[in-house]
Amino acid sequence: MISESMYQLGAKRSCIRELFEYGLRQAAIVGQENVFDFSIGNPSIPSPPEVGEAIFSLLRERDSLSIHGYTPAPGAPEARAAVAEDLNARFHAGIRAENIFLTCGAAPALVAAMRALAVEGAEIVSIAPYFPEYRPFAEANGCKFVVVPPDTERFQIRLDELEKRLTPHTQAVIVNSPNNPSGVIYTRESLTALAEVLRRKSRELGHPIYILADEPYRELVYDGAEVPFLPALYPDTVVCYSWSKSLSLPGERIGYVCVPDGAEDSAKLFAAIAGAARTLGHVCAPSLQQLTAGLCAAVRPDLEAYDRNRLTLYEALTSCGYECPRPTGAFYLFVKAPGGDAQAFSDRAKRENLLVVPGGDFGCPDFFRVSTCVPYDRILRSLPVFQMLRKEYA
Amino acid sequence: MISESMYQLGAKRSCIRELFEYGLRQAAIVGQENVFDFSIGNPSIPSPPEVGEAIFSLLRERDSLSIHGYTPAPGAPEARAAVAEDLNARFHAGIRAENIFLTCGAAPALVAAMRALAVEGAEIVSIAPYFPEYRPFAEANGCKFVVVPPDTERFQIRLDELEKRLTPHTQAVIVNSPNNPSGVIYTRESLTALAEVLRRKSRELGHPIYILADEPYRELVYDGAEVPFLPALYPDTVVCYSWSKSLSLPGERIGYVCVPDGAEDSAKLFAAIAGAARTLGHVCAPSLQQLTAGLCAAVRPDLEAYDRNRLTLYEALTSCGYECPRPTGAFYLFVKAPGGDAQAFSDRAKRENLLVVPGGDFGCPDFFRVSTCVPYDRILRSLPVFQMLRKEYA
Repeated sequence: MISESMYQLGAKRSCIRELFEYGLRQAAIVGQENVFDFSIGNPSIPSPPEVGEAIFSLLRERDSLSIHGYTPAPGAPEARAAVAEDLNARFHAGIRAENIFLTCGAAPALVAAMRALAVEGAEIVSIAPYFPEYRPFAEANGCKFVVVPPDTERFQIRLDELEKRLTPHTQAVIVNSPNNPSGVIYTRESLTALAEVLRRKSRELGHPIYILADEPYRELVYDGAEVPFLPALYPDTVVCYSWSKSLSLPGERIGYVCVPDGAEDSAKLFAAIAGAARTLGHVCAPSLQQLTAGLCAAVRPDLEAYDRNRLTLYEALTSCGYECPRPTGAFYLFVKAPGGDAQAFSDRAKRENLLVVPGGDFGCPDFFRVSTCVPYDRILRSLPVFQMLRKEYA
Repeated sequence: MISESMYQLGAKRSCIRELFEYGLRQAAIVGQENVFDFSIGNPSIPSPPEVGEAIFSLLRERDSLSIHGYTPAPGAPEARAAVAEDLNARFHAGIRAENIFLTCGAAPALVAAMRALAVEGAEIVSIAPYFPEYRPFAEANGCKFVVVPPDTERFQIRLDELEKRLTPHTQAVIVNSPNNPSGVIYTRESLTALAEVLRRKSRELGHPIYILADEPYRELVYDGAEVPFLPALYPDTVVCYSWSKSLSLPGERIGYVCVPDGAEDSAKLFAAIAGAARTLGHVCAPSLQQLTAGLCAAVRPDLEAYDRNRLTLYEALTSCGYECPRPTGAFYLFVKAPGGDAQAFSDRAKRENLLVVPGGDFGCPDFFRVSTCVPYDRILRSLPVFQMLRKEYA
């Protein structure tokens, strides 16, 4: 007998994936250059040259067993040390190699952290708009998924709504900044206020409410914006990171969980995350990628192409009447749907081979997401379609 | 609050890992060459040269985004096709690319398959001796773990004992052959008889009892022994494979689940495994490793070194009075503990810097495991220690 819930999760394609595959089918009919596919958040710039150089040098200079062999479950010591060193250089973070647990990307990092906190009745709070996979991650791993409604003006955090949703069962709040899908960065002010609420509530409850900081977009920041290092504002923070976007390595599945010493019960939480990872079938993160990420821990991406895409789309869309928070991070725009129904707008746009993701699954059904990691010429040629649609809804 | 069960799983080091780390500490004191560490099943031969060549050619000939980008969740189409083609060439298996789901090694493949079958009350049956991680994989993912006692003579399957343990809740039987820790291969006769029992029981119960064939050691076979392809004997078989041992890539986390068309509810089961993988945080298997495994799907390891180690240890140990089934697969010997208590023997051996794993965690407390993937000279120099201990217990 087959688990019905697992079957449903496997059989139901995500809305993003469905649009993406529709785009591929349409491309075969009308030509790839005529499909304006803004559905998927797949890096469109190559990895920095240091990545390829690191892989080549590892393969040339080290023997097969030391590159491809098992590492300890939390990762190769030199890679963990390199991550800690980079965090300390940037944030004076006081992180030790022993606080870092390398994972197959941010997704299993988050799942392991949730499982480590999945005591009876556990609740995980997420702030809309949010990455849709948070829901199955929580619900299939023993946690109730609680949603804070979005601030559709500034896309910061509605603290009053958040506080209403904190209960004695609240174990963690997921903070994803720069945010997917909004592209907005939570300000230092927002995060300080959040920390205040959580600190007070944790005291009241007698146990910490952890922040799970999901930070795959940490390095994708524009206009010189600041992404505060959360453990410095709120010690009970577990950072989940991935090199998918920063080094354009999304397929390579390499990321980490960082449990700083300052987090309450830090050593026990780290061990529970290790135990949880074990139950997910984690043995170690892919070793060549571990070593590569270690060698490239201080490498930052060249964001020029994303920045140009972002500004071009943002300016073109807002100047013809779309409403959209100015994104200063990640590679998305989150746009208010003309007509108010993003699903209807997405369906209509699809008929013009313009693929945008309606915000329902992000907890924000009036908005649609536009990925800006798309070839620049395709963006330019899509603009008349955006304009035409805007007029149609005027 | 932290999950106590996850904490326990993370804090309790496995007996193997503990011995291995003891060995490292001792090596720092007495010198690496004086520690006879037979604890860990870590491949000791380098990857076949085709592996490095494949990685180099991928990096040289393909662009960054196509190597390092997301693949579909079940894997890169060319890699899935290469696996299917290789299975068909060897076993006339009728496998399609669409039956293959690439994973981060065999561990998450098994966990995903168990989760896909984790209906209310689900039971997973394992035949002792068994790989100790099966237990947390099952128990932490919604299944009861049921153990069939070992056949300590031939290390085949005690079918009477197995049948007694099949209940209306039995969802799957794990078959691990070549076996870790015994090094024994289940004969075609054993597997045919097992298939008979399971077929009859499945009919009685009105639902299939699947075999989960855990096959990381499939290619590590000596003396021309046969490893029957289980789906040909019993269609309701899900194969979990890893290239960890066959290509000496244990750190790289690349393997697959294969759900053949002949398995009952094949499409639904495949979808449920995909859904389960999603809840584990699987996005795709590491892409460079997928492409490498695809290019090397027909590459087999050079087993000469393992074979020499195996024969040397087997002959030396049995000729001085140890009892041990002759291993024809994997890279282990499973030896009856002189004195009858493998834990006591392992503790005693440890005082001579000889590290062997007591069989308790494998469900076989009278035996200890000796990994044969150890440098040959170290094996030779360990033989007098084995002999001395044997005499001591005589």
